[in-house]
Amino acid sequence: MRAELISVGTELLLGQITDTNAVYLARLLASYGVDVLHKQTVGDNLDRVRGAVVLALQRADLVIMTGGLGPTEDDLTVEAVALAIDRPLVYDQSVADGLAAFFERRRRTPPASVFRQARIPAGTQVIPNRRGTAPGLIVPVGDQTIFIFPGVPHEMEGLVAEGLIPWLQARTGGDVIRSRVLRIAGLGESVVEERVRELIHGANPTVAPLAKTGEVHLRITAKGPPGAVGAMLDEMEAALRARLGDAVFGIDDEALHTATARLLIDQRKTLAIAESCTAGLVASRLTEVPGSSAFLLAGFIPYSNEAKVRDLGVPAALLAAHGAVSAEVVAAMAAGARRVAGADVGLAITGIAGPSGGTPAKPVGLVFVAIDSDARTRTEELHFGEGPGRSVIRHLAAQTAINLLRLTLLRW
Amino acid sequence: MRAELISVGTELLLGQITDTNAVYLARLLASYGVDVLHKQTVGDNLDRVRGAVVLALQRADLVIMTGGLGPTEDDLTVEAVALAIDRPLVYDQSVADGLAAFFERRRRTPPASVFRQARIPAGTQVIPNRRGTAPGLIVPVGDQTIFIFPGVPHEMEGLVAEGLIPWLQARTGGDVIRSRVLRIAGLGESVVEERVRELIHGANPTVAPLAKTGEVHLRITAKGPPGAVGAMLDEMEAALRARLGDAVFGIDDEALHTATARLLIDQRKTLAIAESCTAGLVASRLTEVPGSSAFLLAGFIPYSNEAKVRDLGVPAALLAAHGAVSAEVVAAMAAGARRVAGADVGLAITGIAGPSGGTPAKPVGLVFVAIDSDARTRTEELHFGEGPGRSVIRHLAAQTAINLLRLTLLRW
Repeated sequence: MRAELISVGTELLLGQITDTNAVYLARLLASYGVDVLHKQTVGDNLDRVRGAVVLALQRADLVIMTGGLGPTEDDLTVEAVALAIDRPLVYDQSVADGLAAFFERRRRTPPASVFRQARIPAGTQVIPNRRGTAPGLIVPVGDQTIFIFPGVPHEMEGLVAEGLIPWLQARTGGDVIRSRVLRIAGLGESVVEERVRELIHGANPTVAPLAKTGEVHLRITAKGPPGAVGAMLDEMEAALRARLGDAVFGIDDEALHTATARLLIDQRKTLAIAESCTAGLVASRLTEVPGSSAFLLAGFIPYSNEAKVRDLGVPAALLAAHGAVSAEVVAAMAAGARRVAGADVGLAITGIAGPSGGTPAKPVGLVFVAIDSDARTRTEELHFGEGPGRSVIRHLAAQTAINLLRLTLLRW
Repeated sequence: MRAELISVGTELLLGQITDTNAVYLARLLASYGVDVLHKQTVGDNLDRVRGAVVLALQRADLVIMTGGLGPTEDDLTVEAVALAIDRPLVYDQSVADGLAAFFERRRRTPPASVFRQARIPAGTQVIPNRRGTAPGLIVPVGDQTIFIFPGVPHEMEGLVAEGLIPWLQARTGGDVIRSRVLRIAGLGESVVEERVRELIHGANPTVAPLAKTGEVHLRITAKGPPGAVGAMLDEMEAALRARLGDAVFGIDDEALHTATARLLIDQRKTLAIAESCTAGLVASRLTEVPGSSAFLLAGFIPYSNEAKVRDLGVPAALLAAHGAVSAEVVAAMAAGARRVAGADVGLAITGIAGPSGGTPAKPVGLVFVAIDSDARTRTEELHFGEGPGRSVIRHLAAQTAINLLRLTLLRW
C-alpha cells in the first residue's frame, strides 16, 4: 500500500508553524509498513488543494489530509476534495447534531458558521470529534481512500486513533515494522552508547540512540512477520536492560513522571513536594497521571524566604547561614514538606534558574534536590551551567528530582 | 515571483526528522515577498526526485531544494536535477579542490566517495561550503532558477546567506511581506471571527484566524514597500483591537503567562496561588518569566482536603457542605492563599480533570476559578466537558485562570 500526505494551510508555506502532524502520520504509517512516497503542502486555496488531491490519487492508494477543516471561509479542504473526486457536498445531520452537542456541553450557543462543517462529500464516513468541532472524514474513491483530519494536533491524533489506526490494522498483512523506545534517565548519551555499543550494530532489530533533554532514548526497530516481531523486540529489550539496569524507566510514550507516579500508586506511598526554582513543574507533571490524588497530599511553592520558614518550618537561621540555595536548606525543605503534610516521602528543589541571581560562589544553573523518607534521605548538588537557559535548567532540575524519587521508590 | 520548495530525504517521509529547513526557507521567502504556493517532500529515489523537479518547474519561477547532496549512494538530488532538465553532469575541478582542502584542514584523508560531490550539472554556479562538504548549487533553467542546498541545517543556512539572500535582494527590490500575530484569550474562534468578519475579507493586509488550545490567533499579513508595511500592520492591528478590546493579550510570540507576569511586575503587585486540579501549572508558567520572584510570594498545591484546611484555612464545614469542587471552596482558597502569604492578589483553581471522579452533578471538566483582591473578587464556573481529556482540561483551566488574573490587573 502506498500512501501520500497532504498538509493544507497557508501558515505552513509562510513558515509560521512547523508541520508536526506530518511527522506524526509518517511515523504511524511507517510502523504499519505503509510506504509514504510523497508529501505535498499547499495553501488555503481551493484550486491548489483540489490539484493536490488529483495528483495524490494518481500515485497513492491512501491519501491522508490534515488542516483546512475549521468553520471559517479559509477552510476549504472538504470542498476541494469534493471537486477533485467530482462528488456533491451533502448536509450530514449527524455531524450537525454532534456540533450542537459540543456547544451544549460547554453551555455556549454555536454561531451559524460552525454548521458549515456539516457539509461533507456524499458517501463519506464520519469519525466524530470529541475534542473539537471538525469531524474526521473517510472518503472512499473506488479502491482508494482519502482520510481528512483537522489540523489541531490533539484533535487529529484522537481521530487517527479512532479512525485511521483500526483501518490500517485491518488492511496491512505480511511483514510489519515495529518499533519500541527504551527511555533512560540519569545517564548521558555517551555513557549509554558505551554500555550498549555492540548491540547498536545489528541489522535487524536495529537500535538507534537519541538524546533528549534530561533523558536518552534507544529506538529498537524490528521487521518480520506479525507473529514474530514482538519476540524480536522483547529479546533486544532484555539485552539492553541487562546493560542499563534501572536507568531504564519506561517504554515508548511513558514519561518519567508517569513511571514514577505509577510506582507511588502501586506502593501506596504518599508524597509532599516543596519546589522553589521549579515552582510547580514536578507537581504538575506527577499530577498529569490519573489517580494522582492517591499519593500527592500537598505541594508547596515557597518562592520567598518567608514562605520557606512559615509553610515548611525551615529555620530562619539556616537560611541566614547558608542561603536559600544550599544543601542544608533543600534538606530542611524536604523534611518540612513531609512533616507538615504527614507524607511518606518529602521531595524538594531549590536553585538558580537565571538569567540573573547568580554569583561566583552560586552561579546560574546551580540546583539542589533533596529527598526525605524512611528508606532514604539524600541531597544532590547539580551544576547545569547557565548555557541551557532558564527554561531548560528548570526542566532538568524537575527531571532529576523525579528520577531521584523513582530510584528511591525502586530501592525502598 | 513564485517559489516552490522540495525537501528530499526518506527520513522525512518516515517521520524520523522534522523538516525545519522548509520552515526556515518559507519564512525567508515570505519576508522577501516571494509567494510559496507548493512544497513537495520526496524520498531518496531518483525517479521521484526527478518527477518533483519537473512538476515544480511547471508551476514556479524559483525552485529551492534541500537534502540528498551528500557523498553516499542515497544522495541523488544532483543527478535527478540533471535528468529533469536534460543536462549532462560534469566534473567541476573547483568543487573537487574545495573538498580536498576541507579534509586537509581537518588533517584527514578524504574517502574517494566524497568526490562524487564534484559532479554537477553543466552551467551550474557553485556556492562553496565552508561548514561541510556538499556545495550549494545555482542551476539556471531558461528564466527559471533551481537552488540546491545540503540538508544539514547549519550548512544550509550558511549557504543560503551567501548564495540565496543576495540573489533575492537583487531581484525583489520593491515589495516585502510582513506578518504580525494578535493573540486573544477568553473568546472562542467563532466569536472572534464574527466580531472581525468584515476585516477578514481584505486583500491586503490579509487577516487569518487560527484556533489554538485556549486561545485564538489572528495573523495579519501586509505586502508593500519596506517603508509602508509597518504602518499597514499598525492600522489593521488598531482596527482589530477596537473590535476585540482587552481580549487581545499579546503580539507574535508573547505567551499569555508572559503578558500577565509583566503586568504583575509593572504594577508591583504580589501574588499567591492555590492550585488543586492544575497542581502547579499556573505557578510554573508564571515563573517561566525571569524576574518572577518579584511578584510570586507563595504557591500552594492543596491536593487533599486536609491541606486545603491546614494550609489555606478553608473551613472544614464549607468543604463538607459544598465539596472541594465548588464556587464556595474556590473563593475560600483564593482568599486563604492571599491572606496566608500577605499578597495583593489570591488566585485559586479547583476542578475535576478526570478521567474518573466525575458525578452527574459535578462531571469531569467542571472547573472553578477564583480571584481575590481589593480590586475584584470573582468566581467563574467553567464547563470544558470530558472530551478534551485530562491534560487539555488542566491546560484550559490554567489558561482561564491566568486570563482572569490578567483582566483583573488591567482593570484594577
